[in-house]
Amino acid sequence: MNERLQAFYRIRGDASSIEERARGVAIEQSVEAPLAVIRDPRILSDIVGQVASIEDQGGGWFGVRIDLASATVGEDAGQLLNMLFGNASLYDDVVLDDAVFPPGLLAAFGGPRHGAAGLLARAKAEGRALTCSALKPQGLTVEELAALAYSLALGGLDYIKDDHGLANQSFSPFEDRVRACATAVRKAGATTGRPTRYVPNLNGHFGQIERQIGIARSEGLDTAMIAPMIAGVPTLQALCRAHPDFAFIAHPAMTGATRVSPYLFAKLFRLFGADASIFPNPGGRFGFTMACCDKITDALRGPWDGLRASLPVPAGGMTLQRVPELLDYYGRDAMLLIGGALLSAPPETLVKETATFVRAVTDYRYG
Amino acid sequence: MNERLQAFYRIRGDASSIEERARGVAIEQSVEAPLAVIRDPRILSDIVGQVASIEDQGGGWFGVRIDLASATVGEDAGQLLNMLFGNASLYDDVVLDDAVFPPGLLAAFGGPRHGAAGLLARAKAEGRALTCSALKPQGLTVEELAALAYSLALGGLDYIKDDHGLANQSFSPFEDRVRACATAVRKAGATTGRPTRYVPNLNGHFGQIERQIGIARSEGLDTAMIAPMIAGVPTLQALCRAHPDFAFIAHPAMTGATRVSPYLFAKLFRLFGADASIFPNPGGRFGFTMACCDKITDALRGPWDGLRASLPVPAGGMTLQRVPELLDYYGRDAMLLIGGALLSAPPETLVKETATFVRAVTDYRYG
Repeated sequence: MNERLQAFYRIRGDASSIEERARGVAIEQSVEAPLAVIRDPRILSDIVGQVASIEDQGGGWFGVRIDLASATVGEDAGQLLNMLFGNASLYDDVVLDDAVFPPGLLAAFGGPRHGAAGLLARAKAEGRALTCSALKPQGLTVEELAALAYSLALGGLDYIKDDHGLANQSFSPFEDRVRACATAVRKAGATTGRPTRYVPNLNGHFGQIERQIGIARSEGLDTAMIAPMIAGVPTLQALCRAHPDFAFIAHPAMTGATRVSPYLFAKLFRLFGADASIFPNPGGRFGFTMACCDKITDALRGPWDGLRASLPVPAGGMTLQRVPELLDYYGRDAMLLIGGALLSAPPETLVKETATFVRAVTDYRYG
Repeated sequence: MNERLQAFYRIRGDASSIEERARGVAIEQSVEAPLAVIRDPRILSDIVGQVASIEDQGGGWFGVRIDLASATVGEDAGQLLNMLFGNASLYDDVVLDDAVFPPGLLAAFGGPRHGAAGLLARAKAEGRALTCSALKPQGLTVEELAALAYSLALGGLDYIKDDHGLANQSFSPFEDRVRACATAVRKAGATTGRPTRYVPNLNGHFGQIERQIGIARSEGLDTAMIAPMIAGVPTLQALCRAHPDFAFIAHPAMTGATRVSPYLFAKLFRLFGADASIFPNPGGRFGFTMACCDKITDALRGPWDGLRASLPVPAGGMTLQRVPELLDYYGRDAMLLIGGALLSAPPETLVKETATFVRAVTDYRYG
């Protein structure tokens, strides 16, 4: 239970305040609540992130190691990402550099089922590297892609993968494409005598991907590609567990420094169907500006061709005292989220404090 | 078929080269192949991204609008994210600022099922904003969380949500937690007469989340939270479709400027089970340095407590001419991925070019 993983961050700051800032990140990435809220000594000792070291790297940046409890991960890939950088991704002075995992987590995730050696062995590539090309551009028809695959396979490649842009578009639907390309590659293999592999690009959610794996399997395929930061890392994890005979190739789409404006995410979440979106309000624990907040709010509930509005949920260090100000700004079409500040109240007055919050919102005079 | 969405990027550059750079991004975010590869005029006109406008924003940054074909999205949320920023996320001179969607895509995704009005109506909050708090810190037992929920509900909140750090950890497993907190909130509601809602935090892949929704449903809940950038945006999309009676609250974990070193993603993908990982090799279309590449390669196949090695797949603009150099560096435990450069060959010589690539790798003298 007391195992910890080590998360390595770079944090911008100055020598006088870096210790406090590092502690702030350690708290954000573990209990996400003021330490004053935590009355259980077991949580303080076993769950709260611990700042293990701080090193001045020069230029206003500090290397900070924070040790996070393995127990908080719960053996889920998404939750691991969440613990490492979920909220810290919202801090523009924090970079996640590295992580080191204890044996328990390594065993829980388990790494590749086949890995480098397995892929080399499958390709009967003794003592050499593997070859691969991609089917593209998107927009080609199924027949055109299959013809391309056939040519590439005739050339004797080890792997021929879908371009990561090939999903389930009308111009080359997944099932038709996979059956046609697999057939083409098999046919070429009968000529070349080489075990060329066609690697379809998986897309959608886990349920859809399960069906896609079934199609691939029925064509005798044993390898597939997935972009984990698009499908979600829990999907990659589950696929590896559910299909130990399959090999999975990760595509790096969306793994770069994301640099997407937060407002656009709010907009996308609305587009995809989120009924409400939480975001950091200015003046809390995150450095979002009021201008950014204006845009988020507008993205969530501004007129948009008949789409229903999403409910803005400003959060991230809001306090009871700020309720009137928040309501002045957001009006009634909002949900106020107050976490730590409310829980800072001693247990015996929590109900009362909560009721005060409720009343402040209920009694506010909406314009 | 010819509908387009508008993607708005900021691109760093200078006036003399910005047009070319913008075209490069438009190609990367659509066909991902040199235009010389594309012989079908329909793809050139209907599929290739079009640079619609370039505006000098000063300070070395340019606002660029690129119009992308709706047909390339295929109605999948993940694929939309992919088209907007999948590979561009790997360019450090490109920021994705905004996107505007045509009616066809709006209809395909459909937005919230309940939205702001539905959430307000459910809470019977007439003419006022909603209230919400969060159950935290993680590390509390099920009983402690339920007690907390009970107190918060007694205070009369509209919504009480799990902290986004509450997943399925041993200290508060999802099912036990949700049943206990739902019961506590119901009990409090019988006292207050208010329809306080408990909102569990969904986690894992779509299959796991389906089971979680079932548990929530059996407790009479009708609202849940999800972090789409952790679960994967296709999961959010599918949940909204599969459970139109549920409301979903989006959590912003991982939506900040990601700023995660690419090498760590490679390491994580290995940890989660990817048998191979594609990444941009230096000297191609992406600005990754050799030092970064060293780290990625080491993350993928360096010794790691008995985990199998992942196969590095250097890519992103590699050419036949570079095969020896790539093999000098990667040796046999690698997969060379050559896409556009190979496909640049005219159709009649593609087989031969491909065979040349294969031979270059086969005949290379591995050390």
